[in-house]
Amino acid sequence: MAPPSDDSGPLGAAEAGAISKVLIVIAMQTEALPLVNRFRLVEAAAQESIFPKGAPWIRYHGEYKGLHIDLVWPGKDPVLGVDCVGTVSAALVTYASIRSLKPDLIINAGTAGGFKAKGAVIGDVFLASDVAFHDRRIPIPVFDMYGIGARKTFATPNILKELNLKVGKLSTGDSLDMPPHDESAILSNDATIKDMEGASVAYVADMLSTPAIFVKAVTDIADGEKPTAEEFLQNLIAVTAALDKAVTEVVDFVSGKCISDL
Amino acid sequence: MAPPSDDSGPLGAAEAGAISKVLIVIAMQTEALPLVNRFRLVEAAAQESIFPKGAPWIRYHGEYKGLHIDLVWPGKDPVLGVDCVGTVSAALVTYASIRSLKPDLIINAGTAGGFKAKGAVIGDVFLASDVAFHDRRIPIPVFDMYGIGARKTFATPNILKELNLKVGKLSTGDSLDMPPHDESAILSNDATIKDMEGASVAYVADMLSTPAIFVKAVTDIADGEKPTAEEFLQNLIAVTAALDKAVTEVVDFVSGKCISDL
Repeated sequence: MAPPSDDSGPLGAAEAGAISKVLIVIAMQTEALPLVNRFRLVEAAAQESIFPKGAPWIRYHGEYKGLHIDLVWPGKDPVLGVDCVGTVSAALVTYASIRSLKPDLIINAGTAGGFKAKGAVIGDVFLASDVAFHDRRIPIPVFDMYGIGARKTFATPNILKELNLKVGKLSTGDSLDMPPHDESAILSNDATIKDMEGASVAYVADMLSTPAIFVKAVTDIADGEKPTAEEFLQNLIAVTAALDKAVTEVVDFVSGKCISDL
Repeated sequence: MAPPSDDSGPLGAAEAGAISKVLIVIAMQTEALPLVNRFRLVEAAAQESIFPKGAPWIRYHGEYKGLHIDLVWPGKDPVLGVDCVGTVSAALVTYASIRSLKPDLIINAGTAGGFKAKGAVIGDVFLASDVAFHDRRIPIPVFDMYGIGARKTFATPNILKELNLKVGKLSTGDSLDMPPHDESAILSNDATIKDMEGASVAYVADMLSTPAIFVKAVTDIADGEKPTAEEFLQNLIAVTAALDKAVTEVVDFVSGKCISDL
C-alpha cells in the first residue's frame, strides 16, 4: 500500500486501499442532526477547529464501522441566524474541509425539489448521476458552458445495484423559487431534481480530485401546484428521515470497501 | 500627500498601522494583465504556489511604492479554457488568498454593467458603497434577507474625497443577462452597477474580517438598448484601461497610509 502523499491527492490515497475517511457535506442543521445522532458524532471543540475564526461552519466527527466520518455544515449566518444555504457557502466549507481533512469520499446529502414530469415523488431519495447549474447564464460562446458547469458525478454502480435509490440528474441554483428562465434551464439540464448546493460541491470536489456522490431526498414537487416554500417546510422533517436512512445505507455499504468497489 | 496622521504620535502607531499587504482580486485575465504590468508584478512559480494542486487560480506578486501587492484571478477553466468568472470561483480564490496571505486590504477590481437610470455611463469607474446579490431568491422569512446578503463595504471617505470616482451600490449575480426577476431584484437593491463577483468577495472578506473595497468600471449599460454580451465584449479592452488607471490611483493613495486613513 502506497503511503498517501500530497502530490497524489486524496484519490490516489484512497485507490491504494479501503476507504477510511468520509466527509458528509450538508446545507441545513435540520438535515444534519439526524445523521449526527445516527453516527454518534460529536461536535469538534472550538479550540480544535479546522476552520478559521469568523467562519460559522460546524464540524462533527466520529468513528463508525471502521470509517472516520466528518460531517460539516455551513452553520448559521452570524447576523441573521439562518442556515448558510446556497452555492457560495457550500463551496467554501467543502473546500476548507477537503484541504484539512483529505477525505477519500464526499457525500453531499440534502433535500431537493423533484419534477413529477420526470417521475419524482415526495420522499424519494435520489443518487445524482450528473450535476449542473441552472442560474448562471453567460450568453457568450464557451462561457455559456462554463456557467452551466455540467459534470458527471463519481460513478457508483455497485451502490446503485445494492441500494434502493433512484437515479437522476441534479440541477443547482441559489434560489428556492423557479421563474421561467430557471425552469427552462433546468429542463435543458434534463434534471429530475433541483437543489441549492450540489453542483457547487461537485465543482470543488472535482477541482481537488476527490470523489463525490450526491444523495438527495425530495421535499417538494417543483412542477406541482403547491408553493415551493410551503411544501418544503411542511415536508422537511419527514423527508429528512428518509434522507437519514438512505445516507446510513450508503455509509454502511462504503464501510470496508475501496473507492473502486463503489 | 499628507503623512498618515495618528493621535498616538508621529512614530509607532503610524509605522505599526501602515498598510503593507494589498490583495487585488480580479475575475478575468483581460482585466488583470494591465495591472500586472502597471505594478510590475511577476507570476508566482508553480512550486511556490499558495493554492492547491488542481485549482486553476493564478497569483502575481511584487513590491510597489512600499506595498506588497498580490493580484489573484481564478484562472481559466481547465476543460473549457475560459476565465472562471462568477461568485463561486471568486469566493474560493478570495478565501484561499486571505488565509495564505493575510492581506491588510482587498481591492476587488473589475468591469460591471451600469444603469443609465441611475446615472452610469460607459467608462465610469465606481467605488461600491454597498453590495448585495440579486439572484438568490429564498422566499422564506429571514432566509430572504440571507439570500440578498446586503452589506455595506468598508468605508473610504478619504479615497472618495481625493479621487475622481463615482459612488453607487453594486448588485451581484452569476448571469450576464438580466431577465425581469433579476432586474426587479437589482432595482430593489437600489444598485447603480451590476457584476458577477463583488458580493461574493465581500461575503468572504467580511467573514474573515478583512477590509475590502470594490472598484468597478462600466463596460455596458444594463438598462440600455444594446445586447449586454455584445456591448461588454466591444468595450472590454477600452474600459479596462479606465479601470487600470483608477486602481492605480487607489493603490497610490493607499501607499503609506493606515486603514483608518482611507
